[in-house]
Amino acid sequence: MQESRSTTPIVIVHGGAWSGISFQRDARADGAKHAAIVGWKRLEETGNAIDAAEAAVCSLEDDPIFDAGTGSVLNSSGHIEMDAVIMDGATLNSGGVACVRNIKNPVTLARKVMENTHHCLLVGEGANQFAEKVGIHTIPEEQLLSELSVTKLKLCEGNYGDRVGHAFKAKNVKKTHEHAKGEHDTVGAVVIDAHGNVAAATSTGGITAKMAGRVGDSPLIGLGCYGDNVTGGVSCTGHGESIMKVHLASRIIMYMDAGLGPKDAAEKALDYMYDRTEGAGGVIVLDNKGNFGVHYTTGYMAWACIRDNKLHHGISGHENHTEELPQNMA
Amino acid sequence: MQESRSTTPIVIVHGGAWSGISFQRDARADGAKHAAIVGWKRLEETGNAIDAAEAAVCSLEDDPIFDAGTGSVLNSSGHIEMDAVIMDGATLNSGGVACVRNIKNPVTLARKVMENTHHCLLVGEGANQFAEKVGIHTIPEEQLLSELSVTKLKLCEGNYGDRVGHAFKAKNVKKTHEHAKGEHDTVGAVVIDAHGNVAAATSTGGITAKMAGRVGDSPLIGLGCYGDNVTGGVSCTGHGESIMKVHLASRIIMYMDAGLGPKDAAEKALDYMYDRTEGAGGVIVLDNKGNFGVHYTTGYMAWACIRDNKLHHGISGHENHTEELPQNMA
Repeated sequence: MQESRSTTPIVIVHGGAWSGISFQRDARADGAKHAAIVGWKRLEETGNAIDAAEAAVCSLEDDPIFDAGTGSVLNSSGHIEMDAVIMDGATLNSGGVACVRNIKNPVTLARKVMENTHHCLLVGEGANQFAEKVGIHTIPEEQLLSELSVTKLKLCEGNYGDRVGHAFKAKNVKKTHEHAKGEHDTVGAVVIDAHGNVAAATSTGGITAKMAGRVGDSPLIGLGCYGDNVTGGVSCTGHGESIMKVHLASRIIMYMDAGLGPKDAAEKALDYMYDRTEGAGGVIVLDNKGNFGVHYTTGYMAWACIRDNKLHHGISGHENHTEELPQNMA
Repeated sequence: MQESRSTTPIVIVHGGAWSGISFQRDARADGAKHAAIVGWKRLEETGNAIDAAEAAVCSLEDDPIFDAGTGSVLNSSGHIEMDAVIMDGATLNSGGVACVRNIKNPVTLARKVMENTHHCLLVGEGANQFAEKVGIHTIPEEQLLSELSVTKLKLCEGNYGDRVGHAFKAKNVKKTHEHAKGEHDTVGAVVIDAHGNVAAATSTGGITAKMAGRVGDSPLIGLGCYGDNVTGGVSCTGHGESIMKVHLASRIIMYMDAGLGPKDAAEKALDYMYDRTEGAGGVIVLDNKGNFGVHYTTGYMAWACIRDNKLHHGISGHENHTEELPQNMA
């Protein structure tokens, strides 16, 4: 365990890097802001970064606009298989679940893996068996299903590779935000508490029409998520296979270890990912000195951050709005 | 795809970092040497690094002395669940399978994921469904079972955490090889061919008495394996959860990107892992300049490497024997 120290608490969340169209923009922005406030409230209640990260991600999982928990997309078999992870930056312990079914809040199950097992990752049936054992009961798949997810699968025409390529790749074209089109709504949160403890979490239903059993970067520490008190934390979203190829989360952490700030590390890593894979995505990053960074190479990524009782948020381009926290919060 | 260039071909394999006892030392050493020769022969036949890495790992999977494929250990439910990955350093494409059952050569299935899907990782039932679809048929679990695996589960007394801690941790003691005791036999191979193409692969049955659904570092690129023509390749073994915590494979690659050679990068990364997690393990590493490195913080790791028609090998301490390739090979 790393020695903790006094620092400025920060809660930052994202609602997924996505397409070049502004479909349901307001609902996504509101969902991200709400989740940041939920995380902040929990942080005020318990003072614990892990509690806050879990609460923020649960809020995003419960909002059917996002592709995580309720609202997860359907795979090619018409089923929902979800992935989530949570990491404790004080100990480097983490818990992840992948390809888990019929669970309302996969991030809460991931936390149980972290706290109640000697493992970091449980997948498939084993993860569902563990859920029952620790009292997280399965729910009918219909309760996780949104109209939007059904529509997305229906709209899924043609070859999966072409569609995902259209969403997250920009082969042979000049790199601009507008070249990365499509939809994706993986969610995540990174928190540092007043003791300097970092927590990070990511949760997703994956990509519409993915193969049964497909797992992307999201539940894998060093790929879709990482948290370390010594450096900071990160949660990723975007084209999972591209993120995996360049081990995006660990890359950002190691860029920060080498001296870059959160924003510069995020930009450098996403540029590197684009150069090596032509894949697009987004990240939220914070360091242990009170700084945060947001960057995405997709058209949009809903994000929100609370620091010093101010709510920062944005959803496209270089948007960075700042407002006072709602009265009942400040 | 990175431009390829002429280079010195190398095949390097490991048969798993393991305990402080020399049980079946000769069989492990022979198995590793044989696998390196199998990989080298394949490289001579096809000139392709991926073919060679797959062939070497299949040889290790087929040898019941190792905990991968045939000879995989049993989980707490008495079943075999296997993980494997293969990565193509020319494209950064990879394929992995996790928690897959009844498959003779998981690394071959992993290669099918890489070459026949848009994904990098399939787990559980979905991975087995895919296997059937591509003509890799399931086999009875008994055919994968070794007497040794049954004995290991029987010998598994007491708390899993204590046992694995005894095997791979050395809390509050001075770091020496002898403090990391236990058994583990994850296998792997890293190859660079004459065109400068790097391939890396790892395969495992995991840790005896692991929970159903548990996945460690092995099938996850950036954690248990990585290959990149720009830098080199690595395959890891040891305490999976510790390897995950410090994203060992990507750490080694980034140390090499920063200028370290394979041996120095391996030592620095395993020292870091020990310092942060008290976990032990081993790695084989090569760069794209004709150098290889071997390092382990466990008592033993069977490894073998062929370069310039010479077979280098070792199994404990700083052993590094060199012999001419067998007559029918050179």
